Amino acid sequence: MYWGVKMNLKKKVSLAVVKRLPRYYRYLSDLLKMDIKRISSQELSSRMGITASQIRQDLNCFGGFGQQGYGYNVEYLFNEIGNILGTNNKYQTIIIGAGNMGQALANYTNFEKRGFKIISIFDVDPKLVGTEIRDIEIRDLETLEDFISQNYVDIAMLAVPYEQTPVVAERVAKLGVRGLWNFSPMDLKLPYDVIIENVHLSDSLMVLGYKLNEKFDFTRNDSEKNNDCDF
Amino acid sequence: MYWGVKMNLKKKVSLAVVKRLPRYYRYLSDLLKMDIKRISSQELSSRMGITASQIRQDLNCFGGFGQQGYGYNVEYLFNEIGNILGTNNKYQTIIIGAGNMGQALANYTNFEKRGFKIISIFDVDPKLVGTEIRDIEIRDLETLEDFISQNYVDIAMLAVPYEQTPVVAERVAKLGVRGLWNFSPMDLKLPYDVIIENVHLSDSLMVLGYKLNEKFDFTRNDSEKNNDCDF
Repeated sequence: MYWGVKMNLKKKVSLAVVKRLPRYYRYLSDLLKMDIKRISSQELSSRMGITASQIRQDLNCFGGFGQQGYGYNVEYLFNEIGNILGTNNKYQTIIIGAGNMGQALANYTNFEKRGFKIISIFDVDPKLVGTEIRDIEIRDLETLEDFISQNYVDIAMLAVPYEQTPVVAERVAKLGVRGLWNFSPMDLKLPYDVIIENVHLSDSLMVLGYKLNEKFDFTRNDSEKNNDCDF
Repeated sequence: MYWGVKMNLKKKVSLAVVKRLPRYYRYLSDLLKMDIKRISSQELSSRMGITASQIRQDLNCFGGFGQQGYGYNVEYLFNEIGNILGTNNKYQTIIIGAGNMGQALANYTNFEKRGFKIISIFDVDPKLVGTEIRDIEIRDLETLEDFISQNYVDIAMLAVPYEQTPVVAERVAKLGVRGLWNFSPMDLKLPYDVIIENVHLSDSLMVLGYKLNEKFDFTRNDSEKNNDCDF
């Protein structure tokens, strides 16, 4: 079966390509649901808004399994990209912070389908500790050290208040957790060998605000335009 | 006062620069809190992990208010970038969906400081309708048309279930809302003149998973490496 493809066949691709892979993965998943078996780079291009040549170039990184005039095998490509992204890996994941964001993350069943198994949630609130979200127990943050010494943990999702984020992050990294997914509006830096992905929600919102402004601000004085910085 | 800088002095900058602006804004905000008045591009570079020449190039887009050997005026730069991003704009914002994610968004007081005023929340759940989050009323989604006809709305944050997202997005866009912030794992496309920013949480998580794999997968067969696609 496809999922059995060995890890050691995984190829190394550039970070720019890697960042596009989850998007290919989403579109291919949709195509599979629609029972579409093959797709040309042109058709994928018009669906995804990426040029066909970019698609061919990206997918060539994984052995170029498209055939001229015949297109890509959707299921094979889906499984291959899933394999590269490690969707069959079942990363052991914990959530720290069971506030609204932590609960939202715990409720995303999609993460599990993408290879991330949430095995525990931690919080300091005695009202939350002992309760469950989707059968996942919320434990007292004080028991974090014990839990990690007894359970292998790959990734910690940090959904704690801003001020506490660096302290909690350091504590988790010290315990040997190798990946941190940070939701506080700061670029976490740690003196440990960990991989950190920051999700900066307000950055995304501010870009939306800027674009709105640009698009609808017809009062802008054109003489102020600095051509070096134009689109 | 700085906040009074006229909108029509705003300059147009490239999208790549715009995407870095919220990050400058965060760092400058931290510097202000530390009462740091001036900063050199070198020091900002070492804090932010962006090259000093990139910083100088970016900030030149806004009139290059740094001085050789003297550095940047932190407060001026913070205010100027805030002005460009429209933090003094108070975009009228609604949240659709008062589940965990919607509630998390409603509780981010940071958004307000960045120019986004949440004026209402909508949901279909009768248990939630009529309740409040931070004094913001949760209204019945059925009253959306009435509300928007009576209140100017710039932005809708969409935190609704996956299947409902396209329908709700179309409904909101039809009512003249110009900006959509989408949390469902799909690239929304609409036949309306709206600006859409998609937040793809699972894409970010999958990139983290990939990096973990790359870093720690020592079993990878090097003969399988495709050099065209290396880092």
